[in-house]
Amino acid sequence: MSTEIKAFVFDAYGTLFDVHSVKEKCEEFYPGKGEKISQVWRTKQIEYSNLRQLMGNYETFLTITKDALKYAIKASEEEWGEEKEKALIEAYLQLTHYPEVERVLVQLKDKTLAVFSNGSHDMLDPLIQQSGLSPLFDAIISVDEVKQYKPTPASYDHALKTLNVKREEVLFMSSNGWDISGAKNFGFRTAWINRNELPIEELNLAPDTIYSDLNGILKWK
Amino acid sequence: MSTEIKAFVFDAYGTLFDVHSVKEKCEEFYPGKGEKISQVWRTKQIEYSNLRQLMGNYETFLTITKDALKYAIKASEEEWGEEKEKALIEAYLQLTHYPEVERVLVQLKDKTLAVFSNGSHDMLDPLIQQSGLSPLFDAIISVDEVKQYKPTPASYDHALKTLNVKREEVLFMSSNGWDISGAKNFGFRTAWINRNELPIEELNLAPDTIYSDLNGILKWK
Repeated sequence: MSTEIKAFVFDAYGTLFDVHSVKEKCEEFYPGKGEKISQVWRTKQIEYSNLRQLMGNYETFLTITKDALKYAIKASEEEWGEEKEKALIEAYLQLTHYPEVERVLVQLKDKTLAVFSNGSHDMLDPLIQQSGLSPLFDAIISVDEVKQYKPTPASYDHALKTLNVKREEVLFMSSNGWDISGAKNFGFRTAWINRNELPIEELNLAPDTIYSDLNGILKWK
Repeated sequence: MSTEIKAFVFDAYGTLFDVHSVKEKCEEFYPGKGEKISQVWRTKQIEYSNLRQLMGNYETFLTITKDALKYAIKASEEEWGEEKEKALIEAYLQLTHYPEVERVLVQLKDKTLAVFSNGSHDMLDPLIQQSGLSPLFDAIISVDEVKQYKPTPASYDHALKTLNVKREEVLFMSSNGWDISGAKNFGFRTAWINRNELPIEELNLAPDTIYSDLNGILKWK
């Protein structure tokens, strides 16, 4: 920890917000399949952002999230419908945040605090707004501003330029192993919020530090 | 089918060869966990090739396959070991091919037949050699020759240039939805070998045709 951390930068989905808090809503529409739909939805959402980036075929994360939901519903042998999609996407704008988030952010209020997400502003902004966390953040940064999904180096570079700090002054938090690998690859310092007790990704890009929730990052204050 | 198909190009893993034929070997070393290890191994293998491409951090598919195996073993709370890795990678060089493969290839022998895979030659060549299918192929093409994983357009372009045909004269076969999407995105004609009755990927790149195994492609002869 030789250089002082000036900016604490947080991934949104899975890190601040519980993406599986839509499970109940999925269950309501598709009884007995809420869990599966929620899981496949998330898996495909990440896969589609990777694939579109690789194919050079960018669409916003909102579009991708709708597409992933449609796939998840079909993979569960259920019927997609416009009304159900509308309601489930609405639920995605109201994901709950993890219990420790607000308390941790408040204790870091002297630092630059930012969200940096694959989410486009049309889904990210309402989500953070309804959570009541908005006043705690100095910046909400979306990859959509440069149309480069994480984990491309260009995406993290966009966050860095927006924040106007040095690379090594950033501590980046994500619960997603692939996102932590991408941030480390770019040169951020990284704290993997390993909420599900998973192994470290085998990409030769181990995180600088690992915590089970966001409380751990207060050591970097 | 306005233009005649001159080259029939096959993905290897999952399309010609059953990647889960290593399940028994996994089960032998890790009783009760063979199925899970085999599944996670394949999932992570694909994920790592995507992530390394996105991060600009290329390693060969053999390295990635070893890394993915290591992750799968750890995720199953089992012990990785050098001897076990050696034996399981050896098994990966001896995957069984699907029952219809040889008969279909023989019937297409007047056409250009090629394998085009993310696999590096150090794993692809021994695999095809031991299968006895080698004499049926005109070319074994690996993305490693250009260090561009599928589904990047540059990877399919490499296959096209190697084959020296026109884009629309290629019929590309894969059982992997993401690979079929990438090939379609590039401009190949595509036959999705949907061995597991999955929904079409929601990427606005539907395959030209879908068959449950390779027999269907004989219609394109």
